[in-house]
Amino acid sequence: MEAIASPLVKVVAISGSIRKASFNHGLVRSVIDISKELNNGVKVEYVDISPLPMLNTDLEVNGTYPAAVEAFRNKIAEADCYLFASPEYNYSVTAPLKNAIDWASRPPNVWADKAAAIVSAGGGWGGGRSQYHLRQIGIYIDLHFINKPEFYLNVFEAPAKFDADGNLIDAESKESLKKVLLSLHAYALRLKGK
Amino acid sequence: MEAIASPLVKVVAISGSIRKASFNHGLVRSVIDISKELNNGVKVEYVDISPLPMLNTDLEVNGTYPAAVEAFRNKIAEADCYLFASPEYNYSVTAPLKNAIDWASRPPNVWADKAAAIVSAGGGWGGGRSQYHLRQIGIYIDLHFINKPEFYLNVFEAPAKFDADGNLIDAESKESLKKVLLSLHAYALRLKGK
Amino acid sequence: MEAIASPLVKVVAISGSIRKASFNHGLVRSVIDISKELNNGVKVEYVDISPLPMLNTDLEVNGTYPAAVEAFRNKIAEADCYLFASPEYNYSVTAPLKNAIDWASRPPNVWADKAAAIVSAGGGWGGGRSQYHLRQIGIYIDLHFINKPEFYLNVFEAPAKFDADGNLIDAESKESLKKVLLSLHAYALRLKGK
Amino acid sequence: MEAIASPLVKVVAISGSIRKASFNHGLVRSVIDISKELNNGVKVEYVDISPLPMLNTDLEVNGTYPAAVEAFRNKIAEADCYLFASPEYNYSVTAPLKNAIDWASRPPNVWADKAAAIVSAGGGWGGGRSQYHLRQIGIYIDLHFINKPEFYLNVFEAPAKFDADGNLIDAESKESLKKVLLSLHAYALRLKGK
Repeated sequence: MEAIASPLVKVVAISGSIRKASFNHGLVRSVIDISKELNNGVKVEYVDISPLPMLNTDLEVNGTYPAAVEAFRNKIAEADCYLFASPEYNYSVTAPLKNAIDWASRPPNVWADKAAAIVSAGGGWGGGRSQYHLRQIGIYIDLHFINKPEFYLNVFEAPAKFDADGNLIDAESKESLKKVLLSLHAYALRLKGK
Repeated sequence: MEAIASPLVKVVAISGSIRKASFNHGLVRSVIDISKELNNGVKVEYVDISPLPMLNTDLEVNGTYPAAVEAFRNKIAEADCYLFASPEYNYSVTAPLKNAIDWASRPPNVWADKAAAIVSAGGGWGGGRSQYHLRQIGIYIDLHFINKPEFYLNVFEAPAKFDADGNLIDAESKESLKKVLLSLHAYALRLKGK
Repeated sequence: MEAIASPLVKVVAISGSIRKASFNHGLVRSVIDISKELNNGVKVEYVDISPLPMLNTDLEVNGTYPAAVEAFRNKIAEADCYLFASPEYNYSVTAPLKNAIDWASRPPNVWADKAAAIVSAGGGWGGGRSQYHLRQIGIYIDLHFINKPEFYLNVFEAPAKFDADGNLIDAESKESLKKVLLSLHAYALRLKGK
Repeated sequence: MEAIASPLVKVVAISGSIRKASFNHGLVRSVIDISKELNNGVKVEYVDISPLPMLNTDLEVNGTYPAAVEAFRNKIAEADCYLFASPEYNYSVTAPLKNAIDWASRPPNVWADKAAAIVSAGGGWGGGRSQYHLRQIGIYIDLHFINKPEFYLNVFEAPAKFDADGNLIDAESKESLKKVLLSLHAYALRLKGK
C-alpha cells in the first residue's frame, strides 16, 4: 500500500522577506511546484508571516495571543517539518523571520522537536550567513536541521536565476532545491520513526 | 579649557525589547543616570524603536522612507556612537532590534564607522548569546564594538537587580555599566582622533 | 529480551583539553561512571586525542594517514555517537579538539550521520561559547547534535564542583550529565530507527 | 618629512595552514610583495606557526613557555597589527591557527588592543566562514578587526588565481589584497592616534 510506504509529511514553508518581489518567495513557490511533481507524500504549504504584529509580550492577554499570532501558531503546530526561505540582511536573519520564529516559540513552543531545512537567495553568498544564525536559534526552539545539502543561491551570477516575475527558472537550482526537499522529507520521516 | 579635554560625545541608546517593563529599558535608564553623574562630556539619549514599521523595502518610495523611519535614521546619523541594550530571544537578537538596525542600514547606511557597545539583561547568560550575533551584524553595517568590558546580567540571581518598576538597583551592576560607558566614550574619541 | 529493548550504543567521548588535570577530563570520567550505573546498553569509551600530530595534509602519503591518526579514525568510525567535552579557549573550541575533528573528517569523513552531544566545564559561562562553534563545525562533518539538555558548568561557583583530583563531586551536575547521556542515547537510537 | 606622515607600521602575517603548498601562504607572500611596492611605511613580516607545540598549559613551567612559544610571543608582542590568512576547515578556523592564537593569549596576552585583518582562500566561500569564528575569538583577545574590505577568494573559479608554485597571479585579487592592507594600515594608525 502506498500510504504505508509514504505517509503524508506536511511541510510549512516560510519566507523571511515580506516584500512582494522577494527572490525567497520565488524559492518557496518553486519548492511547492517541485513537491507536486514529486507526488511522493510530501505536501508543502506556504504560510505568510506578514500579518504578524511585532513581538511584544504585552500583547499576550490572559494567556492568549493576538488573532494573527494564534492562526500562525496553529499552522506551525500542525506541520511535520519546516522549510525556511531565509534572506540575509546585514549578515543575519531578517526581522520578520525572527519575529515569526519568536511568536511561535512562546509557550507552548510549537516548533519543538521537528525537522527543518533552510534555503536562501541573495547577493554574495546567496544569503548563507543567515543560515548559521538561524541554526543557532533552532537549538533553543528545538529544531532538527538537515545538514546536507545546504542551499544558497547567488541571484546575480549568470545564468539568470529568476524571471521578471520572480519565479525560479534555473534548472540546476531547481534540481538542488529538489534535493533539499527530499532530504527534509527523509529526515522528518526518520525522526518520526517511519 | 574643559571643552578641549572632553569634547561632547553623543550616544544613542536603543533597547531591543518593546515591552514596557523590559529589564533592558532599565539598563538604558541606568546608563542615562550614570552619564549625568559622570558629567564628563558624554550625553546619552534613549531612542524608541517601537514606532518603526516592519522592514519592507516596498515601503521605500522614490528614495524616501516612512516618516517614523526617517526620524529614526536622523537620530542614528547624528550620534557619535551607540549603546545597544540587547535582550536574547531564542539565542539571538530580538526582531524589533534587528528591524531598527536594518532600517538604518538602508542607503545611505547611517551607522557607518561609529563606535558601539552592547549590554544585556535576561535569564541564563543574561542575554549574552545575542551579543555575538549583533557583533556579526556590526561587521556589515561597519560598527566598531568595544571589546571590553562585556556586560550581561542574569536578572534572576540574588541579590535583586531591579526594583518593581524595572529600575536597576544593584550597585555592582551599576559600576559595571559605568565601565562600559567609559570604555565606549574613550573608544569613540579614539576613533575620532581626539 | 532486553537486547531488543536496549541495543548496545557505543559512545566515544573526547576531551578537548590535553592537560592532565583538565576539568573536562573529569566530566568524561563522570559520564563513564554514570553509564556503568545506568547499565542500559550505553557504553562510553574515552579516546585520547593527545597523540595526534598537528593537522597537515602533507602527512597523508598515498592515501594513508599517520599511525596515530589511523587509530583515532578507527575509533571514531566504530562509534554510534559522540560526547565532546569541550572547553572554551578564547571564545571558541580548543586547538587539540579542532585538530582531532579535522583529522577524522579527512576522506572518508568518519563522523558522518552520527548523533552527538557537548558538555563543557570552565569559568564564566562554563565553556558554553565553544559549543556554538562546535555545532557549526558539526554541520559540515554531518553530526546531529541533541538540542537539549545543554550542559556547561561554571567550576568556580559554589558549591565545589570537583575534588582535588579533578573528579566531579557535585550531585546536581552529575544528575545533569546523566540527562545529557540519556538524551544522546535516545537520539542515537532514534536516528538509527531503533 | 615623510616619516611624520607615514610612521612605520609593523604587520605580522600568519598563515593558518601548515602544509607547504597552501594557497593561504600564497596570499601572505602576495601581501608582502604588495607592501614592498607600496613603500608607504608598512612592513609585513611572515611568522611561521608550524614550530609551535600543541597547546597544553602543563608545558608552562615556572611562568615560562617552551622556546618556540616564547619566540612566537615576542614576534606578536612587537607587531603593531596582524594579518591572518585563515583557511576554513570544517566551517571554522584551523587547529594550527587556533593553537598559535591561544599560545599568544596566555598571560600576558600579547595580542591586546591591536588592529587586525583577515584574508582567506579556499573552495566555496573562499574560507569565509572561518573569518566569523576568528572575529569572535578576537573579542576575548582584544583585537580590533577592520570591517571592510573583507577578502575571501574561491580558488577554483576561473580565471586561475594561483600558479603551479602557489603564487597569487590574479590581478583583481591582488588589487583587493592591496585594499585590505591599506585599510589595515590606516586602522592601525587611527587606533594609535597617528
